[in-house]
Amino acid sequence: MIAEIISIGDELLTGQKVNTNARLICSELAGAGVGVKRIIVCSDSEEAITGQIADSLGRSDIVLVTGGLGPTRDDRTRQAVKAFLKRELVLDKGVYARTIERYRSSGREPAAYLEQNAMVIDGAMVIPNEKGLAPGMIITCDDEFRERFLVLMPGVPQEMEAMIQSTVVPFFTDRSGTVIVHSHIKATGIGETGFADIIHDIEDNLPDGTSLAYLPHAAGVNLRVSSIGNDKQGVEKDNRDVVESIVGAAEEFVFATADISLEECIGGMLQTRGLRIAVAESCTGGLIASRLTDISGSSRYFEQGYVVYSNESKERNLGVRQVTLETYGAVSEEVAAEMAEGCLLKAGADIAVSSTGIAGPDGGTEQKPVGMVCLGLACRKDNGSVDSYTTTFSTNGDRLRNKIRFSEAALRMVWKKLKSLPAQG
Amino acid sequence: MIAEIISIGDELLTGQKVNTNARLICSELAGAGVGVKRIIVCSDSEEAITGQIADSLGRSDIVLVTGGLGPTRDDRTRQAVKAFLKRELVLDKGVYARTIERYRSSGREPAAYLEQNAMVIDGAMVIPNEKGLAPGMIITCDDEFRERFLVLMPGVPQEMEAMIQSTVVPFFTDRSGTVIVHSHIKATGIGETGFADIIHDIEDNLPDGTSLAYLPHAAGVNLRVSSIGNDKQGVEKDNRDVVESIVGAAEEFVFATADISLEECIGGMLQTRGLRIAVAESCTGGLIASRLTDISGSSRYFEQGYVVYSNESKERNLGVRQVTLETYGAVSEEVAAEMAEGCLLKAGADIAVSSTGIAGPDGGTEQKPVGMVCLGLACRKDNGSVDSYTTTFSTNGDRLRNKIRFSEAALRMVWKKLKSLPAQG
Repeated sequence: MIAEIISIGDELLTGQKVNTNARLICSELAGAGVGVKRIIVCSDSEEAITGQIADSLGRSDIVLVTGGLGPTRDDRTRQAVKAFLKRELVLDKGVYARTIERYRSSGREPAAYLEQNAMVIDGAMVIPNEKGLAPGMIITCDDEFRERFLVLMPGVPQEMEAMIQSTVVPFFTDRSGTVIVHSHIKATGIGETGFADIIHDIEDNLPDGTSLAYLPHAAGVNLRVSSIGNDKQGVEKDNRDVVESIVGAAEEFVFATADISLEECIGGMLQTRGLRIAVAESCTGGLIASRLTDISGSSRYFEQGYVVYSNESKERNLGVRQVTLETYGAVSEEVAAEMAEGCLLKAGADIAVSSTGIAGPDGGTEQKPVGMVCLGLACRKDNGSVDSYTTTFSTNGDRLRNKIRFSEAALRMVWKKLKSLPAQG
Repeated sequence: MIAEIISIGDELLTGQKVNTNARLICSELAGAGVGVKRIIVCSDSEEAITGQIADSLGRSDIVLVTGGLGPTRDDRTRQAVKAFLKRELVLDKGVYARTIERYRSSGREPAAYLEQNAMVIDGAMVIPNEKGLAPGMIITCDDEFRERFLVLMPGVPQEMEAMIQSTVVPFFTDRSGTVIVHSHIKATGIGETGFADIIHDIEDNLPDGTSLAYLPHAAGVNLRVSSIGNDKQGVEKDNRDVVESIVGAAEEFVFATADISLEECIGGMLQTRGLRIAVAESCTGGLIASRLTDISGSSRYFEQGYVVYSNESKERNLGVRQVTLETYGAVSEEVAAEMAEGCLLKAGADIAVSSTGIAGPDGGTEQKPVGMVCLGLACRKDNGSVDSYTTTFSTNGDRLRNKIRFSEAALRMVWKKLKSLPAQG
């Protein structure tokens, strides 16, 4: 089944509010095998609402309307639907009794508008409002829109969320013939277009009902693989096959086939390997540490971080040698290596990563342009000695994008090293 | 003038992404005296895009389309517009040269798709993309849609944001023949509603043509004051008067009357006072240091940062005493104070700020719930001794929001202290 969402409310058209309701409805319906084809935000006017409902019902099996159900004067949805469907508004005694009772139990005098609040479209299936006053409705249309459904819900997010989960999704899951499966492929170290080149042939030969979507991302590629059809097993197999062939073709870039971040992936790998990480940052200024500690439970594997901007603090905290700084400059693989090694030893960690570069916009030179970063990685070996590696990475964003891409390149270096180490037990 | 927004992208219809672009466009256009009447999200298919553009152009003076401009195959906007307007795609030599140059300067080989990326609708005014590859376009339609405008922008938020501010809003402001003045008021430590209460009377008595827009923000309030009219001096005076009265009413929360961040404001204050700052972070995991170093030139005042998660690293790096950790627990003002003092001395800085708290979702207790953070501030006095202050801040978001709000509270503590210190020369 195909659905459209109509979100009503001027606050969504003036930039005061973001339409988070539509996002929630979309993901809930996807799970019910209902695909949303359009989301329309329109103003509170009765005329706009009626016209939009007519358009949308003409194109879809289900039209979900949020907002404009309250008892205040700018809530026009009930009236618009009444006029459009040529049905009466009738008092729902159950809703009325519950709201009166709720007022009494909270020691408030029942307000006059509670009766108006309990008026519903004749013949509608009422959706109880667990979190607020205005009831929702599922209306089965007739005449030219026979067999099509009109769903009315309040615009208050928590009221709408409770209704869609408790009543709307179960109602349509029962009726929906189709199955939709989404999978995620997360890649790093490659852009959208580069990735598209690699999987060109696969993309040209997708099974019917399966599609790819590239979701933009500051420092990598998020790919969504969606399959739709009537046969659950067939849909799942198509989806699985496509995911497998894409992962096979782009193995060196793919870090996950779930919707997780690179830092979350690294956190899991550190734990399965029983390793603790430390970070020494110059140009990334704490961003690598902050990303690693964005993950709940990161205290289990994050030992500590140093943000060392000045040469002095690199020497003082990490034991970077003055001669190295003077000979090669602060932005050099030599300094990155000493930062990582010093960090590993000072923090007593098992693996350490370092960054020193030029985030910009100033400070670039011919040999060391803005957007260049030198990265170091140090690892403790079983015999106690230290392995270290370095690399240089270049990009061309503004300061903030450079910091994000630098941190992504550093995390990538850690991820690649961890892949080469065996997981325990 | 009346506008509609068409947001293209299946990721908006599957619940993957929330449509923040539309909100930004609405508030920017409102400032330009353009009212948005509808927002439509539709899928990547060429047919859906073409049909929607026809509908929307039939109803509005301006139709803004975001998304589907990249060079990958699920980016269909260019083709749809080409077919709909019956115009050719032509190579924009300027865009092509700039992207080639950008690739070269970052040491990458220009990719084949750069040519396709530089193809624009014949006759379109090109909007340069400062933050990415795909150019935007402002197209003046003809025939049945004469005098109506079609604006194409990428879906990547920061690329779209730069385009609408640098080119699109000025373009339509000029055409509307009116004068528009925007001012920004940046406040921290107070929510949207709390701020609205404070300026209630001012908001009720705004001069004609002046409007306020609250722009959502994770840890404070961004208020835009827009004044529109025909008489330049009158418009400027109205705007200035409103800004002054708001700042007067909310002085303790307002850190800037320009569109700058709190970290940028603090950077300026540190420089005018000739002070260097250091940071000691537990629960914020490097975010405070990362925010301070997001500012270009921060090496002039950022001394260094410690990310100390474990008790051991707090003792080892900052000299926090074991007895303090055992007596009061790691999350306590006592530990926050020793962290800040130790950080100040170890780093040899003039001012130091520290954080220790529970970002969640786990680790909370009755006495120390998730969302609670203890902050410390240490300052070197002229006689060499150290002043220190502590405070406890509580909020209730998810882990990432808590980290942002914790870091904001820490920066706020620094800002308030700096306000009390005299600027030099």
